[in-house]
Amino acid sequence: MDHPSPHADLLDALHQRLGERGLLRDPAAMARYLSDWAGERLGMPLAVARPASTTEVAETVRLCRAHGVAMTPQGGHSGLVAGALPAADGGELVISLERLDRIRDIDPVNFTMTVDAGCILETIKQAAAEHDCDFPLSLGAQGSCQIGGNIATNAGGLNVLRHGMMRQLVLGLEVVLPDGRVWDGLTALHKDNRGYALAQLFLGSEGTLGIVTGAVLKLSPRAIQSRTALLGLPSVEAVIALYGRARRECCDLLSAFELIPRRCLELAMEATPELTEPLDAPDPWYVLMEVSASGAMDLDAMLEGLLAHGMEANLVRDGALASSDAQAARLWQFRESMLEGQRRRGEHLRTDISVPISAIPDFVAQASRAIHARSPDCEIIAYGHVGDGNLHFNILPPAGMAETQKKAHLHDLETRLFEILDEFGGSLSAEHGIGRTKQAAYLARLSPVERELVEGIKALFDPAGLMNPGRILPDRR
Amino acid sequence: MDHPSPHADLLDALHQRLGERGLLRDPAAMARYLSDWAGERLGMPLAVARPASTTEVAETVRLCRAHGVAMTPQGGHSGLVAGALPAADGGELVISLERLDRIRDIDPVNFTMTVDAGCILETIKQAAAEHDCDFPLSLGAQGSCQIGGNIATNAGGLNVLRHGMMRQLVLGLEVVLPDGRVWDGLTALHKDNRGYALAQLFLGSEGTLGIVTGAVLKLSPRAIQSRTALLGLPSVEAVIALYGRARRECCDLLSAFELIPRRCLELAMEATPELTEPLDAPDPWYVLMEVSASGAMDLDAMLEGLLAHGMEANLVRDGALASSDAQAARLWQFRESMLEGQRRRGEHLRTDISVPISAIPDFVAQASRAIHARSPDCEIIAYGHVGDGNLHFNILPPAGMAETQKKAHLHDLETRLFEILDEFGGSLSAEHGIGRTKQAAYLARLSPVERELVEGIKALFDPAGLMNPGRILPDRR
Repeated sequence: MDHPSPHADLLDALHQRLGERGLLRDPAAMARYLSDWAGERLGMPLAVARPASTTEVAETVRLCRAHGVAMTPQGGHSGLVAGALPAADGGELVISLERLDRIRDIDPVNFTMTVDAGCILETIKQAAAEHDCDFPLSLGAQGSCQIGGNIATNAGGLNVLRHGMMRQLVLGLEVVLPDGRVWDGLTALHKDNRGYALAQLFLGSEGTLGIVTGAVLKLSPRAIQSRTALLGLPSVEAVIALYGRARRECCDLLSAFELIPRRCLELAMEATPELTEPLDAPDPWYVLMEVSASGAMDLDAMLEGLLAHGMEANLVRDGALASSDAQAARLWQFRESMLEGQRRRGEHLRTDISVPISAIPDFVAQASRAIHARSPDCEIIAYGHVGDGNLHFNILPPAGMAETQKKAHLHDLETRLFEILDEFGGSLSAEHGIGRTKQAAYLARLSPVERELVEGIKALFDPAGLMNPGRILPDRR
Repeated sequence: MDHPSPHADLLDALHQRLGERGLLRDPAAMARYLSDWAGERLGMPLAVARPASTTEVAETVRLCRAHGVAMTPQGGHSGLVAGALPAADGGELVISLERLDRIRDIDPVNFTMTVDAGCILETIKQAAAEHDCDFPLSLGAQGSCQIGGNIATNAGGLNVLRHGMMRQLVLGLEVVLPDGRVWDGLTALHKDNRGYALAQLFLGSEGTLGIVTGAVLKLSPRAIQSRTALLGLPSVEAVIALYGRARRECCDLLSAFELIPRRCLELAMEATPELTEPLDAPDPWYVLMEVSASGAMDLDAMLEGLLAHGMEANLVRDGALASSDAQAARLWQFRESMLEGQRRRGEHLRTDISVPISAIPDFVAQASRAIHARSPDCEIIAYGHVGDGNLHFNILPPAGMAETQKKAHLHDLETRLFEILDEFGGSLSAEHGIGRTKQAAYLARLSPVERELVEGIKALFDPAGLMNPGRILPDRR
């Protein structure tokens, strides 16, 4: 006879309430809920609940609360800080939002869309486009990530400099609180100054204060044209100076401004042999930029003017302006392929840091010196979103280093990098969040005052400590 | 012999700590801290503290906390919901931020400025302009309001459709908590996903969770050109349709789009005789709009195109495009003078409501019918910021109504208006906040779940309930 599984009563109650499709207990069926984009995996959950409505999410949460079982809300598994992975102890119930996948309403006159939390970002972007609108959040994972996860992690991505983080793109939220009650904050109002900003508190709380089940998103007029350019520059200082010019000359139409080091272009060309040298001669730094507009205006003239002024000022050495969508896609392929090239190098340190934009040149120089002082043969690849001061300052371990040594070596370099970052008033998590992976480094830098406030908010919303425990803050149970 | 004033010990300690200039106790000297823009006045405070630094604010708060004395943080007295007026009971200490008036730092490369909370908005805008940047918040009261008050109330104004509310314009905050400790959240990072969004919680909390003493503001490239147009339209439906076109054709360069009814133009011309009929013939509705750009581009062609397309589609009847700054200023004078014309009518109902943009035509029609059904001879003046769904749906009492009847009559009409607003999912405070004036109507609509969360947050940050008590939430002492 089988041993009764722990919490058999809870699982029976969930099974009865959610039905066959709503509760997975078979390890094979659960496999795809156990790992994230980076392939990390911690443990096996109690089960995977797949509620199909806000009411079912609320009942699932009430049952967990009654049985004292911890919950892991889960979107599209594209997080990078292990925030949505079930704990190693096997005691958590995964609550997947994937069946809450309805677009509830689109109001193109109000420039809003109301969606279930489990909607895939790409689906939302397509639905907006069908109504002559854009939902501007743009991420590598947009084909699989869910909007609820984007909200819980305050997602960023490529277009933040123009349209802001997820925080700026949400008007209202519907949230199942840790006790199973529903907070209905689903307002479609562009301006609303009633009381405290509860929706803003849930945004970026990584599922630790409740489970987002629905949202009202802010749309933009659909861009009917865009232009992409790849520019070669002599230095990071020149990149920053060009950014200031671009913000001015492009009149708020600048939608991306990516810093790319020469090494990344080489990695991209290694990973994708069809990609060939994009400019006449190699340059130490590149900028991949895009302008876009929802109306008729001469974007070519705008970009050509910027390029000409940049060359006159000795900021830009050379540049390629895409004259077709295919050429633009080819330029963007460098951005995608460089990530693939990096991945192929095996284990490496990925970071997601930010500093003031004005500090980027000094930070890159000082951090590079400090890292090379400690590890002369490691390879630094620092690329990022200039307009957000957001760098992915990544480090490949020295070629030939034994696999067994890599983890400790990279951790040591990360520690050193974060020390330099502290001197610049930077953030060790610009857009990925804290989750589990960055918790120790986050807590070590938290002031006692802030820690008390943050712990107090967690205790207020989730006194039993069952909602995504151990993410952001230590598990207090 | 004088009776010792209540809390003589506290006042002595404050006097010793803040000095002669830092503590006002003479009723004449205190007079200007007792009333707001609307001329309302509730009572006399214990005294007015004028700390000159964050440290002095913190010490003032610690002393108040130790003596159990309530505090009224105060900026530029331009609030409209009596949130910063000292209570009628005479037991509150006003803490004016006016001496914290330093611009701490401007970083035009990072597009940020760090300021003391007492800086006047206009001063901040000028300082930004000197560095070739804009701070885009734009309000009627900008010559006197302080940035700390703008932050505490999440101020809106004319440019929200392009640049967002104050919430979108703040990167970091420094706050003195109700126990006198300082939360240093003064980050100048454009992207930072560490932990909960504390700064967002303080934004719009109306001084009930702590006193903002400093902020890092987000700047924009300075607009080097702008164009203003006044258009005449046949209906509110046409205004909304034109707004959608304007958002698209003006490519995110639309910085204002104001709805003005014919009656407001008449009020403006009555108040300012130099203003004459702006278009060839009267129209029932007008739009005052502005586009602006930080670079060289043909804004005239953009506006002329919009006007031509609007006329082709029978949305626009006529329009005046300002061809000089003086002409533009003249058009904007209609917006200013109509407020003056309204003020001259004496006591009237001012509201600050929002609905989804798509609901504006139906809301205006239904609300007007409902109000006239109850008060056939009152006069409705509904103007507002179309892009934010924000209407100032104001009501002048019937001509000839006895002064003694007006208050009750207007209150009755407000109650009816809010009933209609509820049917549209609207907000009774789009940008002015709750303060004292809107508390009853706010609380009556608050769900038990939300009330519990909001009261919990207040109790967490301010367990003694001494920080701006009775604003937003009832005084719990």
